[in-house]
Amino acid sequence: MRPHASAPPPGIPERRRPHGGAPIQIGLLGCGVVGGGVVQLLAKSAAAFEARVGVPLVVRRALVRDLDKPRVPELARSVVTTDAETVLGDPEIDVFVEVMGGESFAGELVERALRSERCVVTANKALLARRGAELLALAAEKRVDLAFEAAVGGGIPIVRTLRDATASDQVTEIVGILNGTSNYILTRMTEEGASFGDALAEAQQKGYAEADPSLDIDGHDAAQKLLVLSMLAFGLEPPQAGILVEGIRNLDPIDVKMAERFGLTVKHLVVGREHAAGIELRAHPALLKKSSVFSNISGSLNAVRIEGKALGPCLLSGRGAGDMPTAVSVVSDILDVARNLVAGVPGLATAGAALQKRPLLPSAETRLRYYLRLTVRDEPGVMAKLAGALGEQGVSLSQIVQTEGTGGLADIVLLTHVAREGSVLAALGSVATSSFLAKPPVLLRLEDV
Amino acid sequence: MRPHASAPPPGIPERRRPHGGAPIQIGLLGCGVVGGGVVQLLAKSAAAFEARVGVPLVVRRALVRDLDKPRVPELARSVVTTDAETVLGDPEIDVFVEVMGGESFAGELVERALRSERCVVTANKALLARRGAELLALAAEKRVDLAFEAAVGGGIPIVRTLRDATASDQVTEIVGILNGTSNYILTRMTEEGASFGDALAEAQQKGYAEADPSLDIDGHDAAQKLLVLSMLAFGLEPPQAGILVEGIRNLDPIDVKMAERFGLTVKHLVVGREHAAGIELRAHPALLKKSSVFSNISGSLNAVRIEGKALGPCLLSGRGAGDMPTAVSVVSDILDVARNLVAGVPGLATAGAALQKRPLLPSAETRLRYYLRLTVRDEPGVMAKLAGALGEQGVSLSQIVQTEGTGGLADIVLLTHVAREGSVLAALGSVATSSFLAKPPVLLRLEDV
Repeated sequence: MRPHASAPPPGIPERRRPHGGAPIQIGLLGCGVVGGGVVQLLAKSAAAFEARVGVPLVVRRALVRDLDKPRVPELARSVVTTDAETVLGDPEIDVFVEVMGGESFAGELVERALRSERCVVTANKALLARRGAELLALAAEKRVDLAFEAAVGGGIPIVRTLRDATASDQVTEIVGILNGTSNYILTRMTEEGASFGDALAEAQQKGYAEADPSLDIDGHDAAQKLLVLSMLAFGLEPPQAGILVEGIRNLDPIDVKMAERFGLTVKHLVVGREHAAGIELRAHPALLKKSSVFSNISGSLNAVRIEGKALGPCLLSGRGAGDMPTAVSVVSDILDVARNLVAGVPGLATAGAALQKRPLLPSAETRLRYYLRLTVRDEPGVMAKLAGALGEQGVSLSQIVQTEGTGGLADIVLLTHVAREGSVLAALGSVATSSFLAKPPVLLRLEDV
Repeated sequence: MRPHASAPPPGIPERRRPHGGAPIQIGLLGCGVVGGGVVQLLAKSAAAFEARVGVPLVVRRALVRDLDKPRVPELARSVVTTDAETVLGDPEIDVFVEVMGGESFAGELVERALRSERCVVTANKALLARRGAELLALAAEKRVDLAFEAAVGGGIPIVRTLRDATASDQVTEIVGILNGTSNYILTRMTEEGASFGDALAEAQQKGYAEADPSLDIDGHDAAQKLLVLSMLAFGLEPPQAGILVEGIRNLDPIDVKMAERFGLTVKHLVVGREHAAGIELRAHPALLKKSSVFSNISGSLNAVRIEGKALGPCLLSGRGAGDMPTAVSVVSDILDVARNLVAGVPGLATAGAALQKRPLLPSAETRLRYYLRLTVRDEPGVMAKLAGALGEQGVSLSQIVQTEGTGGLADIVLLTHVAREGSVLAALGSVATSSFLAKPPVLLRLEDV
């Protein structure tokens, strides 16, 4: 059930904060590069924003960690403070803008802001993936907005688009490339045959990857974003376990090259799909046809496609990260929230409030085509044993390539027809201890998206 | 200059229509397939919409041409009328929804609705391309909304995205595939080597092309959409002449095949770009690299990419036409307008009001790479003459392919480096009357997008 369908008609909301001309007062929680960008955009377009909202927008307080760090010139020194209580405790603030990141302290501040019946704009995907259901419910209870366009896909207006789509339509699928670091690395591996390590080093040098890149390259960042989108698309309370998450850290250039040979491209993909048996949520490297629109999403770009019953497919792509694209999204949210405040109507928070725990589709029940690469000792009868093991599990093969190896080893690559993932894994399990297997097998999923 | 930058700060708008709980009354102008879809979506999600807007949405009147035609069951017979005055003259109607199409009568009704200080939602790109500046100015003067998400790109939220982007950012470029019929035909020609005529017949049979397809296949539909987007992106009053518009009607399968040989794909593209010397506006077939994201936008899908200074690139793709995707967009607009009414703040109309006449870049000043195909009599010295003519105009060549012809004819295909379009045309002009030229030359533009 959609959140909208399950929420009772709330009747006519009372006009809670009659903003008859009074400015909307903003409290910034954090003022690093994204926060600074927000301050600059608000200053630059003040007149236009006032025209859109009906009242001026004013940055009243900005919480920072270090008073001496240089800030953008548009930020008045007088509003900057290191004392959270000065900001949280200011009763004049209408909207808190959380751009500090981290789960614990940021979560505490966001919760307190909502409890005190103030709206919140946040760019914090980790916080939402962890506590999204609870915070949205709190916002709904307090009849304030909790907006988070910037939490997924940087400057891409995916949250807004999903919210609009789910208002009158049912969204059945989300597919996306949501981690720019992984996509940059895979693009280098594909286009230049670079190793994972070299491509990562290059990404770090160019600022596309953090010094500690594990959140990105192990798939967790993409999975968090999938959870945030699934709240909106499926009314799903973010599950804290049971999602298939694989990163690109162990991807071998051999597989990138073999994919090329099959006319396929490797991308790190997230997939969310509604099935009668449960919701399928996955984040992992996937092999795509060259004709897939996702195969041409290159470098650090992100892309998301939603599928609506009435709308059909709708794809959005752009810079998934970066200070200014993120700041543009934060400002879009501030404008929306400000307009809701002026209008006295509850916004996004109400729409997303009725999140439910829902069963997930076990990953063994996923049905896809699979790419299997087995490094084997070159002895007679190996192929027969492999094909036999797969056949016993009802997995049929579409293509087989055997490459000459060195030192008595050979690589066998198998493409299956559509098969149940559990059956493929069972077949691989049944040959796991075979003497002919020189290394653990490689499994990659083909996505026809 | 952006419309926002040039508009004076309008101060705090008065609360014009205090909708303290009263429903928003809708008057439908036209109720065909899109209008019927709108009625169905409004009925299905009534409770959710009321929660978002704060008051109920009611279809009060629906203007139709034929009372006896069957309508969707959600539409009460009592609200249907063939008398425009009954609808336009009803002082209780807050929002008119124009989904009848056509320029003349629809234009009259939209103008009258705005003059009587009522908001308008329209899906009518032809009307906006013709009279957009005047109608937006009227809406701004009367302080009502004129919303038109459904006029461009069906279910793709491009108008909303452009409006949000231009609120705090400067948009410098629009590139798009905006005609689904042309894209379907080109996809068939590319994938199956079909002729234009066969592909068109197939498109008509599948309902992707009208019985009279000229608006689509001659490029005018795409050009109208480009004009609508240029209003938002560049603050441009739609020029009624001076835009380069070419369709796909005369595209030869030879050129589709040759493009393939160069690793290029033919798409019908619109391009809008801001230059110091003027705004570049073009709609024509273009050759794209296979790695371009646009080359994988297949079948009847549309796509638009905007480039913002802060935002970077933002691509949106989806069904560009179809009843339900269009109805979803119309309903999004109705929700926005209704919320603006409840809030008492002017919306889109104000933002787009300050459209200006601005100089266009003459198409001769376009700088691109060009594909030239010349069918020549196979006589000595032809290539030297061609290369000489181009060289005299400062056009240098990147690739040359000569194919063996029959009957003493040969096809010479030239790919130029980046050149001024006027110089390329002058060079072609200088050989136009040469005895070796068997047919008029074919010119296609390469776009590195």
